[in-house]
Amino acid sequence: MSFSRPIKLKGQVLGGGKEPLVCMPLVGCDEDTIFREMALVVSKMPDLIEWRVDFFIGIGDVERVVALVQRIRALAGGIPLIFTRRSIREGGTPIALDEDQVFAVYAAVCRSGCVDLFDYELSSEPRHFAQAVALAEQTGVPLIASYHNFQETPSAQDIVAKLVAMERAGADIAKVAVMPKSLRDVLTLLEATQDGMQAISLPIISMSMGGYGSLSRLFGWAFGSSVTFVVGENSSAPGQVPIEDLKVVVDILHRSLRDK
Amino acid sequence: MSFSRPIKLKGQVLGGGKEPLVCMPLVGCDEDTIFREMALVVSKMPDLIEWRVDFFIGIGDVERVVALVQRIRALAGGIPLIFTRRSIREGGTPIALDEDQVFAVYAAVCRSGCVDLFDYELSSEPRHFAQAVALAEQTGVPLIASYHNFQETPSAQDIVAKLVAMERAGADIAKVAVMPKSLRDVLTLLEATQDGMQAISLPIISMSMGGYGSLSRLFGWAFGSSVTFVVGENSSAPGQVPIEDLKVVVDILHRSLRDK
Repeated sequence: MSFSRPIKLKGQVLGGGKEPLVCMPLVGCDEDTIFREMALVVSKMPDLIEWRVDFFIGIGDVERVVALVQRIRALAGGIPLIFTRRSIREGGTPIALDEDQVFAVYAAVCRSGCVDLFDYELSSEPRHFAQAVALAEQTGVPLIASYHNFQETPSAQDIVAKLVAMERAGADIAKVAVMPKSLRDVLTLLEATQDGMQAISLPIISMSMGGYGSLSRLFGWAFGSSVTFVVGENSSAPGQVPIEDLKVVVDILHRSLRDK
Repeated sequence: MSFSRPIKLKGQVLGGGKEPLVCMPLVGCDEDTIFREMALVVSKMPDLIEWRVDFFIGIGDVERVVALVQRIRALAGGIPLIFTRRSIREGGTPIALDEDQVFAVYAAVCRSGCVDLFDYELSSEPRHFAQAVALAEQTGVPLIASYHNFQETPSAQDIVAKLVAMERAGADIAKVAVMPKSLRDVLTLLEATQDGMQAISLPIISMSMGGYGSLSRLFGWAFGSSVTFVVGENSSAPGQVPIEDLKVVVDILHRSLRDK
């Protein structure tokens, strides 16, 4: 029984029916910190690793970024890598680059053959988003369109509208992360995920953030979210849980859902 | 931080902030079976034990029921006991008694001083339900009004209306158990629980049943359900999980909800 959709990469389908896929973030500011993070992350055997390049002080130097992603690729072994610049608009770290410069970094990294997925925000200017879609087509690296709201949880209809817009804009995977003000908001995100599964055919990654939202990180896969982000050496967003806790809860839920 | 309301009994408040309260059912058909169940149940240390008297072949003999409840009381040590006849209308076992005879059993058991709570269905005739309210007042044994739907999950509004009707009718605790046809229905039950917490001031016990519904048995307390029913020697309703699994998930959820 499958509750969420598989993530298809060039040459492989992730997880082989395992759900949710577990992703650990790299949020180090320099090479040494990231190498130390990688040692921990690889030892935990996640299904995916996300490099949040907006935390990296060398983001302005394309060659330095590519050199580092090659090292990360080598250290990751077979674990697929997501390359992500989160904008300050959506909860990322301030950087000194304009969007054309950011895009040059994305292009170089995707062309390096060292990453398996890249994340680009739906709220980007349409011409940049169209470039991201073209980059995915040219390089065969699937594009995760993303939407983050650290202030609130929009209505389920509004969240579904974002997912639909991502599919229409040409994304391969649709991701939404929203902040709950109440437990009711956590249910809204789960509802939107269920409705989104009817509305679009892409895999969906969804989460409610913060303390309340940790509930969705633990069991949102049962409502259709393909990937859950857990704590690496550090969190990349509020509410992430340890991978050990996630695995225990997932095992019990799978058994409960299957046995009845 | 408290997500659900405490259950107040004569002389004690259950759980002392612990949530959810865990209830194990007794569903044996005769004394020997029930004594065997009790050995297992007591060893698992639930917060509550529910005797489902509709499974008991001696239900037609008031003296036999009272003799047995005295034995159960003695075996239960300090664990509070819920006394419940589930009607066939709401998923119980067929019995040969009319409702006046059933009520005589309730009255004798509540007056015996051996039970701490009793469950009576809101769908009973109003004169019987009023008798149950009066019995609770006379004996000091709190009344759980209950509504079970094994066919479907009504709308959140309809479920909340049941909870409101229970409070208006004079119940001390309001319980709803509904059957999901989809994961969306599980969210509906959780929404209704959240809304019910605004609509009434009684403690609420709520659950979605079956495989999908097991999700609500594991984390419905975070949305306001005060009690979760787990498997005893046998299940009393579909989707109940083992107490060991529940405890593991609850510990992780408490940590996740608190830490952020």
